[in-house]
Amino acid sequence: MSWDPGFEAAFHPKAIAIVGASGSAAAAEQRGGHGGTMFVRTLKQLGYPGHIYPINPKGQDVLGCKAYPTISAVPEHVDLVIVSASARHVPAILEDAAKAGARNVHLYCSGFTESGGETGRQLDNKLKEIARREGLRVLGPNCMGLHVPAARMSTWDFMPAESGPVAFISQSGGHASFITRYGREFGIKFSKVVSYGNATVMDCTDFLEYFAHDPETRIIGQYIEGIKDGRKLTQMVREINRTKPVLVWKGGVTEAGARAISTHTGSLAGNKQVWEAFYKQTGAVRVSSADEVADMVITFLHMKPPQGRRVAIIGGGGGNTVSATDNCAREGLEVPVLTLETQKELSKFVPPAGTSVRNPLDMGIVLRDVDLFLRTMELVNADPTIDVVIVDIFLDLVKEAGEEKIDEMGRMMCELARRGKPMAATLYTFGGDPAIRAERAKLNKMLPEAGIPIYRSLPRAARAIAKFMDYHDFQRDLTKWEGIS
Amino acid sequence: MSWDPGFEAAFHPKAIAIVGASGSAAAAEQRGGHGGTMFVRTLKQLGYPGHIYPINPKGQDVLGCKAYPTISAVPEHVDLVIVSASARHVPAILEDAAKAGARNVHLYCSGFTESGGETGRQLDNKLKEIARREGLRVLGPNCMGLHVPAARMSTWDFMPAESGPVAFISQSGGHASFITRYGREFGIKFSKVVSYGNATVMDCTDFLEYFAHDPETRIIGQYIEGIKDGRKLTQMVREINRTKPVLVWKGGVTEAGARAISTHTGSLAGNKQVWEAFYKQTGAVRVSSADEVADMVITFLHMKPPQGRRVAIIGGGGGNTVSATDNCAREGLEVPVLTLETQKELSKFVPPAGTSVRNPLDMGIVLRDVDLFLRTMELVNADPTIDVVIVDIFLDLVKEAGEEKIDEMGRMMCELARRGKPMAATLYTFGGDPAIRAERAKLNKMLPEAGIPIYRSLPRAARAIAKFMDYHDFQRDLTKWEGIS
Repeated sequence: MSWDPGFEAAFHPKAIAIVGASGSAAAAEQRGGHGGTMFVRTLKQLGYPGHIYPINPKGQDVLGCKAYPTISAVPEHVDLVIVSASARHVPAILEDAAKAGARNVHLYCSGFTESGGETGRQLDNKLKEIARREGLRVLGPNCMGLHVPAARMSTWDFMPAESGPVAFISQSGGHASFITRYGREFGIKFSKVVSYGNATVMDCTDFLEYFAHDPETRIIGQYIEGIKDGRKLTQMVREINRTKPVLVWKGGVTEAGARAISTHTGSLAGNKQVWEAFYKQTGAVRVSSADEVADMVITFLHMKPPQGRRVAIIGGGGGNTVSATDNCAREGLEVPVLTLETQKELSKFVPPAGTSVRNPLDMGIVLRDVDLFLRTMELVNADPTIDVVIVDIFLDLVKEAGEEKIDEMGRMMCELARRGKPMAATLYTFGGDPAIRAERAKLNKMLPEAGIPIYRSLPRAARAIAKFMDYHDFQRDLTKWEGIS
Repeated sequence: MSWDPGFEAAFHPKAIAIVGASGSAAAAEQRGGHGGTMFVRTLKQLGYPGHIYPINPKGQDVLGCKAYPTISAVPEHVDLVIVSASARHVPAILEDAAKAGARNVHLYCSGFTESGGETGRQLDNKLKEIARREGLRVLGPNCMGLHVPAARMSTWDFMPAESGPVAFISQSGGHASFITRYGREFGIKFSKVVSYGNATVMDCTDFLEYFAHDPETRIIGQYIEGIKDGRKLTQMVREINRTKPVLVWKGGVTEAGARAISTHTGSLAGNKQVWEAFYKQTGAVRVSSADEVADMVITFLHMKPPQGRRVAIIGGGGGNTVSATDNCAREGLEVPVLTLETQKELSKFVPPAGTSVRNPLDMGIVLRDVDLFLRTMELVNADPTIDVVIVDIFLDLVKEAGEEKIDEMGRMMCELARRGKPMAATLYTFGGDPAIRAERAKLNKMLPEAGIPIYRSLPRAARAIAKFMDYHDFQRDLTKWEGIS
């Protein structure tokens, strides 16, 4: 892989030129309208610390930013150009950018290949030609561009949270913004998010290359509609995936979906078999919804790699634990019977009626008694047949024993997770008890920090853990194979 | 099916005897302990209007209710006996109930077949013998019993909401209580919920029989671990399902799950093939999680039966609509291209850039303009290639055009749903804007009432609508077949 340091400036620009931002557009902005002015407004709102240069023919200032008629008229080096203009003006704008020595261009505007017409195709060829000739890194067209919390820049009207270790590369601006916002509900923090649209010049492989080198990024998510160089993608993902897990969400996997992407980003979906082969060869983590993206990210962020697929399930309620077992088994996890020693020890303090100590552990009673819970957890954690411990907690039940018990139980789990086997949790409550909600909010922070991801449901937990194991098995096999060959 | 009117009294008891409720147990109650006293307390809290008779050897009053040493000592006819006592005392208690002429007995206590021992098996046989000899309707053992909002009775510490048209029959008390509480978040109201545990005497077929006749019940959900008379269940579900949709969640479908149920309700799970055949022969709606139960219930409650599987998807964002299309296609729904006429009409007011008018309809712009939204909805609704309209709304986008727009859009959808094709919606918002949350709360009420179920995600919507169609196709084929044969 080659590494292009000039691209770094796009993520931390000292100066941004925004083509198509004009004073007259300020009216549209009142009702949240799109366009160049929106970019100016959003950057200012987010406290972007660099210089903003609106570009419009009349040199009309926008929201207090001094405007210029062309990019080349801007009196300083421009690190990033954002273009919000009619597609037909784009070639001239690119020439202007090149003349100004600006190399990073984000084409927000649409109306190219994806519109299906001959004009769009011609414009496409034109912009490819200019980009090649002038060495421009063109992002888009038809995309939302860059979201970089550390640089306080974003296209979507959303204050970037703290910076974090997750990058998301998305051919869809909608998905990029959805994942960023939704991820926040799971405590996921992003290093950079890229919405790259039609991928006419720069494709996802270019961004992958960047993130492979980005020290801030530890996990990479992708939403792909089509790809130009499948072989390159396969090689890159296989390699990067070894050190930075790569999640790949392929859009247009069904016939109807493939048709839909042709009008979205104008991409060719590629056939199903090819993508199956891609996943097999790369070991990329396959995801197919925002839920799965969030679940896999929190798993990679927080959970220690388990030694195997044998899970213990600790919960209250026979039906719940039976269903949890079904969920785990369906996803390819094992729920083995605990050793007789462990069962014997558990039976010393767990009453036989209405409980089970074999695994799954149906023991509402221990959820009501923190000391019993700790003893149970210690025993299960020490059992040699178990690789991962899943705790399914109905918080209302814990609270029956006292509000402070939720916190106590949480601390206990954290302590155990730090020194013991990989753990996961699902927490639920009903009825909106504010005390329980407050305790849960604390757990939502405390548990992940100690290495315990919290999932929204048992089926989601089971699926995520199974995929996490698939990832580690793939890497283990790959290393073994290379040792032999 | 035979119909046993005496069973009705169990659901609307004038007098309940609670065996095992004692004054001394009141201490346990302080920390939310289980046992007979818990039942007394819960019934009183819920405002149960009938008479409560604690039964304990010393005749110790409980929470102001006069106690008696035996059921037969109670000075009025007892409609329901709830037993919270050691398993070994159960035979004597049943004899006492029979002597008192009480026919409905709920055995809350566990320690029977599910405990795996010889004592449990013997007690099981004993209680079967007494029940048969005395004609007792025994619910359980090892179960939570009855939750009847209209009668203000419930085992779980949860104020029954208004009564409604949904019954849930569950071999697991945990699932019964979970579904009741979780369902509430979807506006689901229950007629009766039955937790029946080991099914030693009364099995799910007995409750099915009751709900088939219950005028209050229109939809029946079931969670089954094992079944004694599979043939009877098949015949009953096939018949009842024609007029009252029957959802069946089978626990223990995996090997590990099957092992888990043996220690839960002591049931034999039955093999996978047999259950496959059950679904095929009955047309029962297959569900396998609380999420699916909720989703299917709201679909049956609110949506008109569509003529076919061809859906239109209206949303904002190319990626979102591509993924929505993938989701629908994956579940066996079609997302056909709209007629050229419809596309032509849509193109008159939908700008070509960044949108698609073919289907899926990627048009963030119409979500920002209620008039355009209405025109779009009318056109799509009138298109002959479409059976169901799914609207995927990012409320934050609508709000950009004004807070009142969310309400306007909602009213429009309701009006259209009432006179037009079946509709479904997914609504989302991020960042917790209180104005948007308030509007969404209104929509959550308004839309379902007009026939538009609201799903938590597009994948869930697609799955529910596909299963809904499976149900109607099955019924249509069944009717056709009977017309021929």
